[in-house]
Amino acid sequence: MSKGLPKRSEDYSLWYNELVKKADLAENSAVRGCMVIKPYGYSIWEKMQAELDRMFKETGHSNAYFPLFIPKSFLSKEASHVEGFAKECAVVTHYRLKNAEDGSGVIVDPEAKLEEELIVRPTSETVIWSTYKNWIQSYRDLPLLVNQWANVVRWEMRTRLFLRTTEFLWQEGHTAHATKKEAEAETLQMMNVYAQFAEDFMALPVVRGRKTETERFAGADDTLCIEAMMQDGKALQAGTSHFLGQNFAKAFDVKFATKEGGLDYVWGTSWGVSTRLMGALIMAHSDDNGLVLPPKLAPIQVVIIPIYRKDEEFDAITEKANEIMTELRKAGVSVKYDSRDTYKPGFKFAEHELKGVPLRIAIGPRDLENGTLEIARRDTLTKEQFELASQPISEKITAMLEEIQASIYSKAFNFRTEMTTEVNSWDEFKEQLEEKGGFLSAHWDGTAETEEKIKDLTKATIRCIPLDRKEEAGVCVFSGKPSNGRVLFAKAY
Amino acid sequence: MSKGLPKRSEDYSLWYNELVKKADLAENSAVRGCMVIKPYGYSIWEKMQAELDRMFKETGHSNAYFPLFIPKSFLSKEASHVEGFAKECAVVTHYRLKNAEDGSGVIVDPEAKLEEELIVRPTSETVIWSTYKNWIQSYRDLPLLVNQWANVVRWEMRTRLFLRTTEFLWQEGHTAHATKKEAEAETLQMMNVYAQFAEDFMALPVVRGRKTETERFAGADDTLCIEAMMQDGKALQAGTSHFLGQNFAKAFDVKFATKEGGLDYVWGTSWGVSTRLMGALIMAHSDDNGLVLPPKLAPIQVVIIPIYRKDEEFDAITEKANEIMTELRKAGVSVKYDSRDTYKPGFKFAEHELKGVPLRIAIGPRDLENGTLEIARRDTLTKEQFELASQPISEKITAMLEEIQASIYSKAFNFRTEMTTEVNSWDEFKEQLEEKGGFLSAHWDGTAETEEKIKDLTKATIRCIPLDRKEEAGVCVFSGKPSNGRVLFAKAY
Repeated sequence: MSKGLPKRSEDYSLWYNELVKKADLAENSAVRGCMVIKPYGYSIWEKMQAELDRMFKETGHSNAYFPLFIPKSFLSKEASHVEGFAKECAVVTHYRLKNAEDGSGVIVDPEAKLEEELIVRPTSETVIWSTYKNWIQSYRDLPLLVNQWANVVRWEMRTRLFLRTTEFLWQEGHTAHATKKEAEAETLQMMNVYAQFAEDFMALPVVRGRKTETERFAGADDTLCIEAMMQDGKALQAGTSHFLGQNFAKAFDVKFATKEGGLDYVWGTSWGVSTRLMGALIMAHSDDNGLVLPPKLAPIQVVIIPIYRKDEEFDAITEKANEIMTELRKAGVSVKYDSRDTYKPGFKFAEHELKGVPLRIAIGPRDLENGTLEIARRDTLTKEQFELASQPISEKITAMLEEIQASIYSKAFNFRTEMTTEVNSWDEFKEQLEEKGGFLSAHWDGTAETEEKIKDLTKATIRCIPLDRKEEAGVCVFSGKPSNGRVLFAKAY
Repeated sequence: MSKGLPKRSEDYSLWYNELVKKADLAENSAVRGCMVIKPYGYSIWEKMQAELDRMFKETGHSNAYFPLFIPKSFLSKEASHVEGFAKECAVVTHYRLKNAEDGSGVIVDPEAKLEEELIVRPTSETVIWSTYKNWIQSYRDLPLLVNQWANVVRWEMRTRLFLRTTEFLWQEGHTAHATKKEAEAETLQMMNVYAQFAEDFMALPVVRGRKTETERFAGADDTLCIEAMMQDGKALQAGTSHFLGQNFAKAFDVKFATKEGGLDYVWGTSWGVSTRLMGALIMAHSDDNGLVLPPKLAPIQVVIIPIYRKDEEFDAITEKANEIMTELRKAGVSVKYDSRDTYKPGFKFAEHELKGVPLRIAIGPRDLENGTLEIARRDTLTKEQFELASQPISEKITAMLEEIQASIYSKAFNFRTEMTTEVNSWDEFKEQLEEKGGFLSAHWDGTAETEEKIKDLTKATIRCIPLDRKEEAGVCVFSGKPSNGRVLFAKAY
């Protein structure tokens, strides 16, 4: 199965692409830049969705659904928003096909031209705020806490499976509040929800930070983000939460009667994570043998493989496997028995390693005699003999799954620590970036000009201003001008 | 709250439209024919999705995701398919906007024209079968049992919330099989899954049937369906399951190596239900006071309303309400305490009736003294006093919810029985259709010609050939030609 998976250390980019395809996660479709998310990949996404959705609901949000299409004029209503999105829009101009007169097939019917073109949503602020105008009259209608699970389209020139695709799946939260303070608190809360999800479920340590003005969402007053470190030393933005100020309320004239009898524009936020998280998950933990999945997001946590020569042996093993499965399922563990007789055990071992199943149990005739099992961990590629009499199997497996979840997180955390370097001069900056990559923690003079020059010279961008950074007087690593704290630079996906 | 809801008996169509809006289910958006599904409406859809998804997985299907866009040439590959869908397609022709030179705003950039136009999927057979070509080589890859939850777009000229919208949400199953028999069994199985869902969860009795050739899905060899009767005597197609034969396999050249060493085209099915089910749910059970929801799909099953004058009374009632909620939630009942002090009880009663909450509990100071509660049923609009000492409240409520679920179904079942009439002459046909509507069970000569003439004259179509109809010699109600069984005619949504 894993034949042909390139080595991660030799060609990280090829390794990633091949892994995504060979592990049955996703593939390119016939439509430029659009992917097909295959059943195994989608089942991981479904687990992510379920946890995120639960967290959104626990923080008071409800789901709703808004139109796929946005009238062209809507997009232009918020000035910086249209600048940010107009360059990458799929535009619907017609609503009918017809048979070509020369019999060459179907063509667009020129008579079915739309009066106003429709944009396939790249994000839904405009269409949602145009709706909120009707939903919000008074302070009693606030806060409005809505989320949407949807597909969006951004016409990207260079695409990569999960990381950057023309169409992708995401959730976008859109909330409206009576006060600035409340909207800011929501922005922060949702960034923290994302961080908690990344750390607790994806086993992915993230830096909580703020974007610079240059990197801010088009139409926001402030953008918070979570940034993660991939195994090749490049950063990946894993989620963003935007404080929109009153920008969209003003663009769509959304006012409310205040408690005090006045009339004021509503304060807004929006926040999203996408199928990009799948890319982060894959790149953060996997190795030359394939995927490494944190147990909390693995569609199958344990696979049982029978090792046998004769049919009688198979029957006895199957009986034991069924017993074990019943016990594991009762304990909430998802387990699969791979009893296919068309493949040999070695092939199955490699396949389940490639697909990142956290634990593999092998049972052979001698195990039945001795009351043992072989348990193999995917993350460490270690094996152990387990005596069934020593402990209930469900306890053993549950404990191992917890240990794996924690261990994958620690490994990624230690890697990130190792890959975060304080640099204090421009030479050091360039040298570290070139030789090691990772996050460079450096003083910056706070100007967009310096930020851009550094980007032009090195391709490194300011990933974020960490929220927990300490005030510290220093001089900008590039311009030598004064700075009051460090920011994180990195090359990024 | 319910002020302004028109009477169902006076203007069914207006009653439906107003109900959908006033009960916060959905509304029209700024984009022609596209709806906004509001949080309360979406929460009902989520419950439907959860149950259907569970049923699909229990029958062995996995979810996946395929592109929103379909290259124009793909749509034409299956001849009857393109005929069925070309007339109602949203067509993407460009991928960028730019600022107009005269400063009048943004315009479509003429230089960003696509080489081949993209169709926003009206259904995904073509893009999925073009993918299946790569997934299927051998009988070992079959059956392939995939489902997708997605949005689709059909450019409808006349739209109605939930029932017929330009964009709608649905699931589409697409399966591939090694034999005709297996694919036919799948087609039947999924139709039965839909019927079971409609009856057990939506409390909606359905006729399981087969479409005539005229009404068949464009590209299918056979279409099975479930048909329901609405309260105005019009039928509604609630779900379809298509046997595709080898049509799409041939169009996209999907062959597989058989067990016997040959090479054959794959057999296919597709099946779907959509947000149209929301329309069916609303129209089947609701009344002049608003929605009537079957408890199994109600986002809130029980609402508790405090009746009080003084603050001390409110505190004591709240304590009791909390006790009850804890017990009900433990029993798996979803319950909400409506403690808003900005609205009076009468207003709250009307609001929760409008929104179809199955049970309402009112608690006043006298109830606290007497150990009683008032429980009101939404479906029958009846009230009863309940003595808390007589029975655990969770048992009482659980039993009542079950009774309501069954009772709503019976009512709809009896209505449908009453609205199904055997007619044996053309005069009788016209008279029944005019005066009563409903399903007309009539002999038909089996020709598309007769079917079309009846449709032109009366607007009634053949909803289905019931799967359980008995063979019965007769003469066609219109042409007088021989027939071997009755079919169901009706006017339909």
